[in-house]
Amino acid sequence: MKHPLTTLLALVAGLAAAATATAQKFEGLALTPPMGWNTWNTFASNIHEELIMATADAMVANGMRDAGYVYIVLDDTWSALERDADGNLQAHPEKFPSGMKALGDYLHERGFKFGIYGCAGRKTCAGYPGSWGHEFQDARKFAEWGVDYLKYDWCHTDTADPRDAYLRMRDALYAAGRPIVFSICEWGQSRPWEWAADVGHLWRTTGDITDCYDCVQRWERGWKVILDLQYSLVQPHDGQNNGIGRYAGPGHWNDPDMLEVGNEGLTLAESRAHFSMWCILAAPLMAGNDVTKATPEVLAILTDPEAIAIDQDPLGKQGWRFRAETGREIWVRELAGGDWAVALLNTGDEPARLSVDFSHMWFIEGERRIRDIWKKRDAGTTAQPFTDVIEPHGVALLRLMRP
Amino acid sequence: MKHPLTTLLALVAGLAAAATATAQKFEGLALTPPMGWNTWNTFASNIHEELIMATADAMVANGMRDAGYVYIVLDDTWSALERDADGNLQAHPEKFPSGMKALGDYLHERGFKFGIYGCAGRKTCAGYPGSWGHEFQDARKFAEWGVDYLKYDWCHTDTADPRDAYLRMRDALYAAGRPIVFSICEWGQSRPWEWAADVGHLWRTTGDITDCYDCVQRWERGWKVILDLQYSLVQPHDGQNNGIGRYAGPGHWNDPDMLEVGNEGLTLAESRAHFSMWCILAAPLMAGNDVTKATPEVLAILTDPEAIAIDQDPLGKQGWRFRAETGREIWVRELAGGDWAVALLNTGDEPARLSVDFSHMWFIEGERRIRDIWKKRDAGTTAQPFTDVIEPHGVALLRLMRP
Repeated sequence: MKHPLTTLLALVAGLAAAATATAQKFEGLALTPPMGWNTWNTFASNIHEELIMATADAMVANGMRDAGYVYIVLDDTWSALERDADGNLQAHPEKFPSGMKALGDYLHERGFKFGIYGCAGRKTCAGYPGSWGHEFQDARKFAEWGVDYLKYDWCHTDTADPRDAYLRMRDALYAAGRPIVFSICEWGQSRPWEWAADVGHLWRTTGDITDCYDCVQRWERGWKVILDLQYSLVQPHDGQNNGIGRYAGPGHWNDPDMLEVGNEGLTLAESRAHFSMWCILAAPLMAGNDVTKATPEVLAILTDPEAIAIDQDPLGKQGWRFRAETGREIWVRELAGGDWAVALLNTGDEPARLSVDFSHMWFIEGERRIRDIWKKRDAGTTAQPFTDVIEPHGVALLRLMRP
Repeated sequence: MKHPLTTLLALVAGLAAAATATAQKFEGLALTPPMGWNTWNTFASNIHEELIMATADAMVANGMRDAGYVYIVLDDTWSALERDADGNLQAHPEKFPSGMKALGDYLHERGFKFGIYGCAGRKTCAGYPGSWGHEFQDARKFAEWGVDYLKYDWCHTDTADPRDAYLRMRDALYAAGRPIVFSICEWGQSRPWEWAADVGHLWRTTGDITDCYDCVQRWERGWKVILDLQYSLVQPHDGQNNGIGRYAGPGHWNDPDMLEVGNEGLTLAESRAHFSMWCILAAPLMAGNDVTKATPEVLAILTDPEAIAIDQDPLGKQGWRFRAETGREIWVRELAGGDWAVALLNTGDEPARLSVDFSHMWFIEGERRIRDIWKKRDAGTTAQPFTDVIEPHGVALLRLMRP
């Protein structure tokens, strides 16, 4: 049957009012890209509550929490293989014997926020229970456990419509009433930047990252390949209408996937460049290394306040690639207050003396002072080109500052 | 993240085995088209438990139950306007103060089966809670209440994929474990005959019916318009590959919507022809009149054992239109054992003397005896044409029987 038109109109008005009231709780949760740590890149299914607690303790001790990495996110495989008799998700009994509420409490007591993983399909990617058809029930359970962040994956979804599937969980989170950052992990297949701005706070644009510079392994890709893919997803990139970046802004971010900084497949220079480029992209900064064993050099990358300030710039404009030539790329990002970030990337396999000539950057009006973020030194002004020797797959990250 | 291929293969095999075992409970539930009564066509939102109980009592007394009308189905508006605090559907407190379990018990004790209504969207068509994102929870509740039949509607579904949405509820019913006939009410928009045979037991092919012969009112249409629509949905209809009928069979039926037999917009002749054509279509026979006030003439139509035997023929082949000319249509249906049903429809507005010449029916081999079902008399053999005066919008329903 269908309804009389008057009923429909009253219903739509009522729904719209209720949705607006609830949605307000979720605004302001990600005015800058979320920062935190996620289990997957290093630990995959080898997770357990001691690891999470030790990671939190390490992030307090090593300064990561205070640098802004507050979301500690359990990725796939945290749950039991079956739901309980009432259809509820439950913690894996051996990995998380104290349960999810206790783990969330542990994190909250130490100033962190608690992130968890779910999947829009029948099963998660690793074969654990998915939220398909259980969205509202699962959202209530997440809220009960004190969850603050949900990464929501896309395996085993068959013919489901992505927008519909993610709206289900968004509205389920609204209904559960606890403000939760909603991370859409649909790999960019349905061009989520076109529909997800009022569905989630961030959306993956591409497939999974792995810890190399430019390898391609089945569905995983090195950070430079992902960087290149960002560039090809939406045209044009002319500085006025800069590709996929036009869809990002406070509360809704493109997500090129989590960080591999400090993982063994990357040199230190590659880690530093990877981190710099994610800051240029206004990307979420979700560390994916074993922070309990991170070296001082890796921690120096992850916690650098000047690099993080670029990522977290309140203007929220994503950067774009200004030049790409053999051996060199130049990326730029407009910052609040008239500053700009510039990344000069050595895409060659040897150290190279590279330059940026700021006189070509027609979009920057007036002279700026140059701050070299990784060398921790001032480097003249934009009246002169910036030149330095840059490591293979390394970067110079500059902030151009108003005088 | 994604999973290793080996995990995927093991998972798929496991899911397939589990699904097969559960699905078996749902096979055999609708080897012939379901028969019963539904609240909507006469009562719409004016339903309450006394009405349902009185209807059941009447259907015992007037012979409808014993004629095969065993599913008593509550359509839209049976529920409370809000779910409870745990997200459960609940009975409307004023219409069904004794609750759904008690009503189901009442029906079961009298030899009926209990049917209910849900919707794949955020809300039902009348604005009550939909199952969108609550599928597994709602299916558990239906099973707990003793539900045997679920009509599942399609309002407020936005960009949802129909196959995905109906699979969610199918799998939720499987998981709840109680055998439930699953009636797909998606109005034919996504050509469900192409995907629904292993999803539901019946699927609506068209929009809503109303109680007239050939009117069109907003989204509602008279039975003759719906009959014509059946014909246009799938081509060709040549008797070998007979349009939409090719998709119907035991366990999975085309549903041209519920009956208007006995409702005030139809003459008795129109009601009889409507019923006859639904029998030719192998349609579900869901009465939609006020059975507590049905006249003997209307009951004689609804409970006619020879007409019902055509609808419920165990071969399960849907009929098709053999001839359509000004003022006359001839429809045929192959039956088990070599019998055939033939409907001769007067589409004109005056009584007319009409004939069927069986010698044109190349698909019927050998001579048959003719039984005139509504006149309750034998009418010679197919060696001669059948001729009779037929009322406006009326029918002669014949069974051609092996000697």
